[in-house]
Amino acid sequence: VDDMWQKAYDFAVEVARKAGEEIRKAGESEIKVMTKSSSVDLVTKTDERVEKIIIGSLKEEFGEDAHCFIGEESVENGEPCILSDKPTWIIDPVDGTTNFVHGFPFVAVSIAFAVNKELEFGVVYSCLEDKMYKARRGKGAFCNDEKIQVSDVKDIHKSIIISEHGTDRSPEKVTKIFSTMQKILCIPVHGLRGSGTAATNMCLVATGAVEAFFEIGIHCWDIAAGAVIIQEAGGILLDVDGGPFDLMSRRMIVANDKIIARRIIQEIEIFPSLRDDAPIQKH
Amino acid sequence: VDDMWQKAYDFAVEVARKAGEEIRKAGESEIKVMTKSSSVDLVTKTDERVEKIIIGSLKEEFGEDAHCFIGEESVENGEPCILSDKPTWIIDPVDGTTNFVHGFPFVAVSIAFAVNKELEFGVVYSCLEDKMYKARRGKGAFCNDEKIQVSDVKDIHKSIIISEHGTDRSPEKVTKIFSTMQKILCIPVHGLRGSGTAATNMCLVATGAVEAFFEIGIHCWDIAAGAVIIQEAGGILLDVDGGPFDLMSRRMIVANDKIIARRIIQEIEIFPSLRDDAPIQKH
Repeated sequence: VDDMWQKAYDFAVEVARKAGEEIRKAGESEIKVMTKSSSVDLVTKTDERVEKIIIGSLKEEFGEDAHCFIGEESVENGEPCILSDKPTWIIDPVDGTTNFVHGFPFVAVSIAFAVNKELEFGVVYSCLEDKMYKARRGKGAFCNDEKIQVSDVKDIHKSIIISEHGTDRSPEKVTKIFSTMQKILCIPVHGLRGSGTAATNMCLVATGAVEAFFEIGIHCWDIAAGAVIIQEAGGILLDVDGGPFDLMSRRMIVANDKIIARRIIQEIEIFPSLRDDAPIQKH
Repeated sequence: VDDMWQKAYDFAVEVARKAGEEIRKAGESEIKVMTKSSSVDLVTKTDERVEKIIIGSLKEEFGEDAHCFIGEESVENGEPCILSDKPTWIIDPVDGTTNFVHGFPFVAVSIAFAVNKELEFGVVYSCLEDKMYKARRGKGAFCNDEKIQVSDVKDIHKSIIISEHGTDRSPEKVTKIFSTMQKILCIPVHGLRGSGTAATNMCLVATGAVEAFFEIGIHCWDIAAGAVIIQEAGGILLDVDGGPFDLMSRRMIVANDKIIARRIIQEIEIFPSLRDDAPIQKH
């Protein structure tokens, strides 16, 4: 079994690179010739095409029905988002679609693999930076084949914290998000940042560039690969209320250390979000 | 005269690259062996060393007393920050010192050159990304020798806006900064971003990755080079109250277009900041 997942891991890296090249090409060739105003279709098309490339490659390699797939586009199109015990690929073809449309330099392909509901490996390819992050459970985390590890900062006052404003503009949520950010900035910390993609944010914690990242409203495909990378880089994952991390809960804090995570958790104003594995709503 | 400034422009690019290599080396070799907790000295040392390299190289090339210099470190050490009619270099050796300490991937060398109080050229080297931005008045703006131009988005709802939280944590300022950001997010816009360096933020506007960037509290050395790059890329600079841009005023908005700039200006809550060319305060 060990060898089989190693092969799947290596193959995931290959597929992520191929997908990232597609994204780069789409960005370079198509965005240049269109006004950004007409770019919403481009995002959808690229998302769908890249997800098909990824899932198609995996099915070709491992057999049509051997594995399950949870992909952002498939779920949007009505497929279930349930993690079973079966070998399951969890895929975000283009994490950071707003960045992609604008040419902002953080866009990632995220591919994770779980067996018996446990994440076996994760691959995040930050394709505009050409940085390949990967980790397999128990085998360490890497960026472009160099071992990475989280920062050693334990003093919250010397930390950088990442958060995001999200895409929901409902006043209640936005007010809580800004209130949380302001309280964290005034702990005080060195600074607040945000790349615009959850997958890249998690990798920035894993490499030690920032100490923590939290968000409410993310999806399992945004964070599954990053979750393995964070843990293998020596970091931790928790729920935003300090309880255990739950991949399907749509909320999470990752940090270099428990001390940092707990201090940030004190300031997070939680708002409700529907679980990824909630029964499907009729549209 | 034209040829002489061309030579100075080419030389500035060379010097910026050399300075960026020093910064990269300092980050790689020294940050790895020290805990981040002890890194404040590293910043100061790197800042001072890189500014000396830059000013030393320029003096060696152009003569000891031919030009004036305004550099972040020199001004910190008590030298005047006055823009006269003489040929003047305006230098930030390491823009993004917090990023530098943490290894967050945006750190820039910023070198600008003014004659008769008018900016002739600007060079911003984003050294961790290895992106060399440059522009000479009337001759276009470039990133790694490829021509760049601002975004064509005129609809504020399709824009990304950059702002920064700054380093001042006084409650009045922080509250105004967050209030401004929240109002802008809820116009609504596509998103808010911030690289943690003013020079890089200006270049992100110049390449079209974002539509606007504004900040109160920046210094002339953070923005002088970017100001030329923005203008040559087709963008505009204004004061945050909509009046003309003033290099020494410590406040500014840059945008791809007047429509975007004016909409953002409506939301900016201005707070006071001492001018860069104010009479020197005794410490």
